[in-house]
Order: sequence, then structure tokens, then C-alpha cells
Amino acid sequence: MGLEGNLVVGQSGGPTAVINASLAGVIAEAKAHPEIKGIYGAVNGVDGLLKEEMVDLRAETDETVSLLSQTPASALRTCRRKLTEADYERLLSIFRAHSVRYFVYIGGNDSADTTHQVGVLAKQSGYEMRVMGVPKTVDNDLAYMDHCPGYGSVARFNALAARDAGLDSIAMATSTHIKIIETMGRNTGWITASTALAREQPGDPPDLIYLPERPFDHDTFLSDVKHVLERGRGCTIAVCEGLRDADGNIVVESKTSVDTDAFGHRQLGGIGDYLARFLMDALDKKARADKAGTIQRVCGSAQSSVDVAEAKMAGAAAVRHACEGTSDQMVTLVRVNSSPYQCEMDLAPLSAVANSERPVPDEYISRAGNDVTPAFIEYALPLIGGPLPRYARLKMQRVPKLLP
Amino acid sequence: MGLEGNLVVGQSGGPTAVINASLAGVIAEAKAHPEIKGIYGAVNGVDGLLKEEMVDLRAETDETVSLLSQTPASALRTCRRKLTEADYERLLSIFRAHSVRYFVYIGGNDSADTTHQVGVLAKQSGYEMRVMGVPKTVDNDLAYMDHCPGYGSVARFNALAARDAGLDSIAMATSTHIKIIETMGRNTGWITASTALAREQPGDPPDLIYLPERPFDHDTFLSDVKHVLERGRGCTIAVCEGLRDADGNIVVESKTSVDTDAFGHRQLGGIGDYLARFLMDALDKKARADKAGTIQRVCGSAQSSVDVAEAKMAGAAAVRHACEGTSDQMVTLVRVNSSPYQCEMDLAPLSAVANSERPVPDEYISRAGNDVTPAFIEYALPLIGGPLPRYARLKMQRVPKLLP
Repeated sequence: MGLEGNLVVGQSGGPTAVINASLAGVIAEAKAHPEIKGIYGAVNGVDGLLKEEMVDLRAETDETVSLLSQTPASALRTCRRKLTEADYERLLSIFRAHSVRYFVYIGGNDSADTTHQVGVLAKQSGYEMRVMGVPKTVDNDLAYMDHCPGYGSVARFNALAARDAGLDSIAMATSTHIKIIETMGRNTGWITASTALAREQPGDPPDLIYLPERPFDHDTFLSDVKHVLERGRGCTIAVCEGLRDADGNIVVESKTSVDTDAFGHRQLGGIGDYLARFLMDALDKKARADKAGTIQRVCGSAQSSVDVAEAKMAGAAAVRHACEGTSDQMVTLVRVNSSPYQCEMDLAPLSAVANSERPVPDEYISRAGNDVTPAFIEYALPLIGGPLPRYARLKMQRVPKLLP
Repeated sequence: MGLEGNLVVGQSGGPTAVINASLAGVIAEAKAHPEIKGIYGAVNGVDGLLKEEMVDLRAETDETVSLLSQTPASALRTCRRKLTEADYERLLSIFRAHSVRYFVYIGGNDSADTTHQVGVLAKQSGYEMRVMGVPKTVDNDLAYMDHCPGYGSVARFNALAARDAGLDSIAMATSTHIKIIETMGRNTGWITASTALAREQPGDPPDLIYLPERPFDHDTFLSDVKHVLERGRGCTIAVCEGLRDADGNIVVESKTSVDTDAFGHRQLGGIGDYLARFLMDALDKKARADKAGTIQRVCGSAQSSVDVAEAKMAGAAAVRHACEGTSDQMVTLVRVNSSPYQCEMDLAPLSAVANSERPVPDEYISRAGNDVTPAFIEYALPLIGGPLPRYARLKMQRVPKLLP
């Protein structure tokens, strides 16, 4: 009774720790629908698809498919490619030739647009097929959903890393006074904000957190840092690679053309080192920057169990809805209960998701613009999947001094 | 029968993932010796000690002491301070005033020298006390031992990070062609070499590994990278922050005075970004650098179980030997069997350890100087404590092409 044909699944944009869990969800669900014959993986997303590069996912063992959920990065490989009209035509002819009736694309808003355009062209051409998006982005900036698969794990990594680097900082505070942790985040501060989840007690690092949702001002920054340093325990600062000044210009941005991708996004990164130098010059105190870079988005050991489960559910939901006749939609994640945390899958039009972005809302940013609020912690904590491992905390009971 | 008195333990130099396990070993062993009365922790090593800043470690619960082993960084805080003659005199008067008969200092070669000098002065002054060193350094460059506590965990972190970042790189190879992983390592390449432990099959990333034991040449580097890029799967490169050119000069080094510590060591770091820019200019291909920085040395989730156990044993051995009458020695780790791996604690004079450094030997570096050898893998693999978590590896069985 269903629409008989083959399914193509692809992965797009930056890898995450759980995009393969979504792939596992797609494969498992597809196997449960007899109308789906071949289950094909697009190699390097639409980039490989245009070269007819597909792999047979039914050839993979159950064990491999199950291991996918704990395997970070993009097993099918990925791409950042903006398609031309001719590309869309070619894509459709490939789908026709291979009897592809289901196209599931796992990605962010650029990928949602690509998927939507495929659906539009298929409809115009009278080729019956169903196109679905599965959300994926460490940036957590897709609208129409509570959060995005990939975020919980990058947040867990940054919570762990900020806690460890913060302890390192306190330990070294007599020689290295300032530690800057640079996180990813092109336009939004969701990832940077997650470093706050490192704190177990008030006063724990990070001491300052700067998001691109607030204009970055060098003088205010300097005065914030001076204030923290007065406590004598050093200063641990989390900054977003995408920080902007009052005019909206990125503070540190690569100017080379090779660093600009097909969607016009510039490669960021380097603000940590830049601000470390700025503080060293201004304060004559040693500063050091850590930039985990891509390691943060694909850290297998920092996978959030909640994130893995939801990524898998999102992949499965896309296939289930497609088999029920839905098309041109992206799966969305809706928080139906906060305590205990409960999340369900829903849908939003691909075109709507494609053209929107969700910054960190005001109520999650402290008044001074150098921290997050308790409301953010409440929002983000359930997403990282269980508490961080316990650490010792010494009482540090002083031995009375005997000498002058 | 034993020498009655109090014990002071301190932590020195850069934090590691297991230096607190050594502290736990010291505390547990000290509690087992009735001649040891007070167990004091020096706050910020000799820096705090000179200000008589000590904490009572007997006030800590057994649970806290046990949790120390899984807590990275330096719980007692640390320092980088070179003592003057007057400092040593002051230290001794503090030890006398507090009836300190045992001084256990956990650190690297600078700390070994400090500990040795304390011992020399005590002897000259006719004050009976025993001074012992417990080895600690992520750099793994202390002589007279097979390896150093702290190394196994930083090696595990870099193996995990290089595997994840390498998968990210392969996934992104159509848009970001080159990934550089910058690791720590002031003068030696032990840490950088550990990225090779990421490989499960021949051809797995990292593709190129550069250690400071071989002069870095820009032309050879460029030609190495070009060669790897020809395979079409991108290029993942591990580089040491301490790379030097043919004249022995550090390729990228901070020149500011605030970046030079009391021992004259300059703050390194930045070679990853530098080489990424160099390759982008030379090849017109996108390159990106990850620099985990201090995160790599204190990553709690990457603790090696072998490293934790050995760090604890080393701390305990120092106290045991001191109680037996030994002084002026550092605990050393000796590999007594390779397969199965077996390690025992031994001793070496503090002054010997203080004045030596152990680079990566020739037999661990590939002929071309851009990789490690199987002998290195055999050496390092047991130290990271068990295999890396399993990942899925797709067969990638191609679907036959149907279109021209």
C-alpha cells in the first residue's frame, strides 16, 4: 500500500558526536517498512550524490549499524555545497534512475533548504517522492525546536572541558593568571553558554562567559577580568569564536577567500589567542588560550546519552512520517515536560526551518552580559545526559602558622 | 624506631590528570605509618610553603581521598617557582618549626632539583629529614624511568582526540582539506607521538606526525602534505608546539617577557594556526587547527586506568621508602615485562633526574621524520590503559552507477 521504492539518506554540514546515531535510526526504521527496498547512503551528501556516489546500507551488519550510535563524525562523509538549478535537475534524474522515492537529509538550515528544493522540483516534475529533514547541528540554532541533536554532546564536552581547564587554572593561578576557553558557535552562543554547566558550586569556573548575542567591548571585558583577578584564584573565561563588536563585525575573522564556504560563511576561530594577547599586553599577566576546535563537536567520550537517544529517534521519526505520506518537513524536538525531562518528536516545514535562526534568548543571558542565568542551566542541564563524574573537593583546613 | 614527625606533600609544575592520584597514594601510605604524625599539604607547592600555607590532610574524609584518584589537575594547587638561597633557608626553618621530617614533592625535573636542594641544606644544617620526589609530567621526558605518571592519560586523550578529529577530517574532506592537531610538548615529542595510537588500521589518521626531535623544514612539510592530499581523503597532521627549525630555533614562540616562567621556559603554542595559514597560502586549500591546550593534560574522562594506578603506587612508594630511611631519591617506573605489560617502582637520585631530559629515541621515529614507528606503538599502547571505545566502520559497498 505504501509508496514502493528506494531510500537515500545523506549527512550534511559539520559532523557531530551523534549524527551517526540519526543515521542508525534511519536505517533501523527503514528496515521495518517493506515498501522501502534499497537503503542507500549518499557519500559526502549531495556532493557525492551528484556524482551518483551511493553505498548500500543493507550490506552493513546489524552490529555495525548498532555501533554507529556510539561513533562520532559523519560515517557517510559530508559536504558544504550550495546547489545550482542544474544540480537540482541532475539530482532528480539520479533519483528517478535509481527509483529513489525517499530522501532523508540529516543537517542544519542550509541542508533543510536543499532538501526542500529537491521536494519542490520533484513535485513540479510530477515525480512522486518524499523528502524529510533530520535536524543536526552543534550550534543548536535551528528554530521550531527546543534543541538540536548534536548540541547535548558538544555541551557535555564543553562542560567537562571547562571544569577540567578551570581546575587547571585555579591550580596554576600563581603563574598563569588567565585561561581563555574558545568554543565554536558561528552566530549564536549556545555552545559557549554550555561551559557554565561545569560549575558545581557558586564561584566555580568559568568566571566569565561571553556570547555573540551581546556586543563585545574591550574595555568592559578588561574591567570584568580585573575584577575577577582580585580574588586571587586566577580567571577562567569562555568566549565564542563568533564574538562581534558593537557594529556587528566579527572581532576575529579570517579574511582569506579559501576560508569562505559555499554559503558565504567565513571560517572563524582565533579569538582566544587574540584576547589572551590583549590581556597580557593590558595587564602584564600571563594568559593562555585553549581551542578544542573540531575535537569538541565529535568527542566520542563526551557523548550525551540523551543526545544519542534523541538523535536516533529523530532519524527514525523522519522515515516513519515519510512512510505515512508526509513530505517536505523536518523532524523537530519538543520538550513536553521539564521535570522530569521529557522530549517528543514533532514536525515543522523544511522551508520554515531553512530560513530561521535561533539566538540565545535574553532570559538566558546575565544582565552584565558576561554570564548565563539559572534559567539557561535549567534548560541545558537535562540535555547533557546525567551529571559529570564526581571529583574530590578538599576542605583545605589550614595548619596554624608558627613563624612571623 | 622510625623517624617521628610530620609529613609535607606538595604538587609542582603543570597539572596532570593523575597528579592527585599520586597525592592519594601519599596520604594513604602515610596513614599506615605510625611515626608519621601530621600529614600536611603545601598549598601552591613551595610558593605557598614559603608563606607557611599548609592544609591538614588528615581532616579529609576517606571518601575525598579516594575520589582524588579520579580528579584531574592539582588539588593542592601548584607553582612554577625557582627558589633562592634565602628561600631554601626559610623553607628549612618552616620545616623545623612544624617538626616536618618528611617532604614529598610531586613534580618534574625542576621540582626534583628543588627537593634535592632542600635535602642538601637539611643535611648541612644537621636537621634530620627525608626528602623524596614523585615523578609527574605529561611531557614524559624524565630520564631514569620507562615513562612518567601523567603521560598515559595525556596520551589517551590525544589518541581519542586524534581519532575523533581524524574522522571529522575525513568526513569534511571535500570542503576542509587539512586538519592540524597541535599538542603540548616543550622539548620532546612524546605527547605528539601518542596521536598515532588513534589508528586502528593502516591508513587511518593522523596522516603525518612531526616531533621536535627532528628539525622542521617547511618545504619537506609542504611536499609531505601534497602527497597525502593526492589520496583525496584530506590530511590530518599532528604537530608539537615545540617544533624547531634546522638551527634549533622554536618555529612559533611567544617573545613577550610575561610568557617566560621562573625557569626561563617560554610559553609555546600557536604552531597549529601558523602552519594552517602556511598551507592555505601555499595550496589554496582550507586548513583548520585544533589546539586542546591545557584541556589535554587534565582531561578527567581520558584518564588511563594504568596511569592512575601507577601514579598512586609512585606516591605510596615515596612514603614507604622515606619511612625505611631513604632520602634524596625520586621514585622511578621500570617496565619489567612487555607482554603482558608489567611495571615496578624503583629509585633514582633526585640530582640525576633533575639534570636530565629524555627525548623520543631514534628507533621510535620514522625514517622520513614524519611519523612514529611500530616500536613506539608497542611502547606506548599499554600506557593508555585498555583499547579505545569501538567505533563503527562502514563497508561502503558502492551502488552501481546508472547514468552517464
